[in-house]
Amino acid sequence: MSAFEKLKAHSHKISHFQHLASICGWDQAAVMPSGGSQARSEAMAELYVHMHNLQTQPQLADWFAEAEQETLNPQDSATLRELKRGWQQANVLPESLVQAKSLAGSKCEHAWRTQRGENDWQGFEKNWAEVVKLSQEEAQIRAEATGLSPYDAMLDIYEPGTQSASLDVLFSDVKSWLPEMIDHAIDKQSSEQFIQPHGTFATQTQKALGLDVMKLLQFDFNHGRLDESVHPFCGGVPSDVRITTRYDENEFVQSLMGIVHETGHARYEQGLPKSLAGLPSGQARSMGIHESQSLFFEMQLGRSNAFIAHLAHLAGEHFTAQDSALFSQDNFQKLYTRVKKDFIRVDADELTYPAHVILRYEIERDLINGNIKHTDVPELWDQKMQAYLGLSTKDNYKNGCMQDIHWTDGAFGYFPSYTLGAMYAAQFMAAMKQTVDVDTVVESGDLTPIFTWLSDNIWSKGSLLTTNELVTQATGETLNAQFFKDHLKARYL
Amino acid sequence: MSAFEKLKAHSHKISHFQHLASICGWDQAAVMPSGGSQARSEAMAELYVHMHNLQTQPQLADWFAEAEQETLNPQDSATLRELKRGWQQANVLPESLVQAKSLAGSKCEHAWRTQRGENDWQGFEKNWAEVVKLSQEEAQIRAEATGLSPYDAMLDIYEPGTQSASLDVLFSDVKSWLPEMIDHAIDKQSSEQFIQPHGTFATQTQKALGLDVMKLLQFDFNHGRLDESVHPFCGGVPSDVRITTRYDENEFVQSLMGIVHETGHARYEQGLPKSLAGLPSGQARSMGIHESQSLFFEMQLGRSNAFIAHLAHLAGEHFTAQDSALFSQDNFQKLYTRVKKDFIRVDADELTYPAHVILRYEIERDLINGNIKHTDVPELWDQKMQAYLGLSTKDNYKNGCMQDIHWTDGAFGYFPSYTLGAMYAAQFMAAMKQTVDVDTVVESGDLTPIFTWLSDNIWSKGSLLTTNELVTQATGETLNAQFFKDHLKARYL
Repeated sequence: MSAFEKLKAHSHKISHFQHLASICGWDQAAVMPSGGSQARSEAMAELYVHMHNLQTQPQLADWFAEAEQETLNPQDSATLRELKRGWQQANVLPESLVQAKSLAGSKCEHAWRTQRGENDWQGFEKNWAEVVKLSQEEAQIRAEATGLSPYDAMLDIYEPGTQSASLDVLFSDVKSWLPEMIDHAIDKQSSEQFIQPHGTFATQTQKALGLDVMKLLQFDFNHGRLDESVHPFCGGVPSDVRITTRYDENEFVQSLMGIVHETGHARYEQGLPKSLAGLPSGQARSMGIHESQSLFFEMQLGRSNAFIAHLAHLAGEHFTAQDSALFSQDNFQKLYTRVKKDFIRVDADELTYPAHVILRYEIERDLINGNIKHTDVPELWDQKMQAYLGLSTKDNYKNGCMQDIHWTDGAFGYFPSYTLGAMYAAQFMAAMKQTVDVDTVVESGDLTPIFTWLSDNIWSKGSLLTTNELVTQATGETLNAQFFKDHLKARYL
Repeated sequence: MSAFEKLKAHSHKISHFQHLASICGWDQAAVMPSGGSQARSEAMAELYVHMHNLQTQPQLADWFAEAEQETLNPQDSATLRELKRGWQQANVLPESLVQAKSLAGSKCEHAWRTQRGENDWQGFEKNWAEVVKLSQEEAQIRAEATGLSPYDAMLDIYEPGTQSASLDVLFSDVKSWLPEMIDHAIDKQSSEQFIQPHGTFATQTQKALGLDVMKLLQFDFNHGRLDESVHPFCGGVPSDVRITTRYDENEFVQSLMGIVHETGHARYEQGLPKSLAGLPSGQARSMGIHESQSLFFEMQLGRSNAFIAHLAHLAGEHFTAQDSALFSQDNFQKLYTRVKKDFIRVDADELTYPAHVILRYEIERDLINGNIKHTDVPELWDQKMQAYLGLSTKDNYKNGCMQDIHWTDGAFGYFPSYTLGAMYAAQFMAAMKQTVDVDTVVESGDLTPIFTWLSDNIWSKGSLLTTNELVTQATGETLNAQFFKDHLKARYL
């Protein structure tokens, strides 16, 4: 067996344990009773230790050295490149730092769950200092290993190939037009009349509606499920993708579009190349490309006139006891494109969302690069919130820098993926429209040509290409934020 | 760390992987879409290989030798005894035999799924020959390691300490009175009038009823769930017990009592000693004792007049659209104690069930001990079926020796557990009644004293005692089939 073959077999072995981790992770979030938590945590910890041991076996270094001397075809070369990337990431950090960061993150997150409600920045800051310090150490080690800046080295985990130099250019551009566009949109919408849903929308009916929408989106129910969890997510494995939502019986709007979003993630997973299952080259390209698929479904496709017409019609068929005016296409369009300046990112609309992300990006970049202190964050947050959305978060930590869970356990470098995803999604739609009559296809109710394009250009590629190669092959150019801007202008101005 | 401490830590490690196997096994049976099957099988196979590697690590032999020289308290001694039992069982068979038997079993079972419907004994027999041959080899190796006869060595896996010499005595006794008792019961019931359920019993309503019954039985929903699967089972882990049922909308009788049965298994698991979690001494004592708890719930408690009154009342509350006469206590009693001679074990009633088990026991004992050939089985089946239940299975293989799945993959030694369980259950009830006024307690609706007795005498003991010690401490004597006979006489004559 060649060194490359040995590396592939080793990757398959790890992927089998990853499979079990994914399914048990879904179980934990979707169905496990709370009393099962402690034993499950212990079992999962044992599994992670085992996977870490597999990823750091000493003979792997020799196998990589040998494999790089072997003659490989382009696909195998891409597999080797991705195998090595994963191996380096798993081996670059000393075990002691991984453990210290995990402990500090758990402590900070656990306390945050009560501190946030109490707006307790003083208490939070003490725990968070350690998380930030250890994250800076991690970034420094990753920087030395990759030759990147500390923040770029963190970004590289989620968005290989993307660096802050290009994000700075992209996001500066967005900042130059977004605040004004938000103001115009709000002004334009101020006189709109529309009906908000209220009354009881039974969970069972919402679920049946969600399943109908998933069918329209050609979710493969032979390889996946829809369930419920407190925080909606897409989990499982490509052959068995588990998406979740949460239902609020007072309204159906959020849950329904949440299902469309997660179905986008799910179809990417279901569409990954089966011949590369168990290898990193067969996995999704990056967080940003993953988000581009969920946002393609939710924003590009899901909020298009033609799709909104389907959604409104299906909802009306399920909620027969409600006033039918609620389910007019026009009313749905207004419900799903309402713009509002607000504090909370996860509740933000399509237009204000990038402002939340850019704010976080700028702060975490400077924090990880050591240009600001963690105690500077609340003031910077307030300044940027005022500049981008005209809202002050002075002394309002819980709706300011303490609102998100990500930073509590040191997940720095992840936020840009959200807006990169929105930008890629707009660019993919523009490219798709050159060969697919998207509106007519959606109106027909058979969306196959759309999914064929996504499969051919994105899903079936796994991680064989770099992000830039993938986007260039699909759209003729690398990331170009103009498509996103044009999309927002067309929808909101 | 002492050798015993090392063995305990090793047991905990294995139990964490066993946890993941149990949860993923539940997932596979209860929620996994069929398209997830192949990748799951591969992941599970990898996990089983890993667990087998852990169980057969060479240093364990030294640790056991050392630990047996260490001074241990009685509880630790029991833990060591059970650790060694598990280790010996995992190490006694050569890997090649385990693999060959697994392959032959899969092949036989897979073909059986179509052969059974086609009554194809000729086809089945060819595959089964190999399964029987490999099972005989397994039994021979186990016999040499334990000093038991081949069949007793297989029995010892499921019922440590029980041997066929005592089963022969027990079952001969049963055979001396059971056929006549069955005839008397059928004769007595022949003039009974009762109402069979028909019409639609919605799955959702059946589930709500089942959950109410589980509450009455004090199932701990903080440490468990009720779900659906094709073959009902009790799985998961003691901190998170997963029971399943299947619903038939034409009737609710089977599913409802099935839930009572599985709740018995579940409460045993939930009641195992938490301080011994992850050690074999903290696990259920044997298959027979496990079945004694499910049958205590289903037969001793579940079919008692006082409990039937609760069941009938609760069912009437849920199925309000049905004729209330269906839900009279008297009608329920008749529905749940109907005796019928029939071919299929899994559908058999309480009274005819032991005949099915004794028939299988006698055949598998002689087969594994090499006293009969596998081609003798259909004729023996027919003879015994005629002797015990007055039914002929001549040329009717699919309702004869091809009806069960157990033998197709070589699970020999397991069948006696069913009837041992029924006997233990009757003996436990008789002992309980000496200190607990069971009928009054059940009538009150608060069944706590019953569960306290079971917890004190069975559940909390795990595998600290041998089966004989456990039964003697709980009831004052070892297994005595007279209690079972008395119970059946009281109920059916």
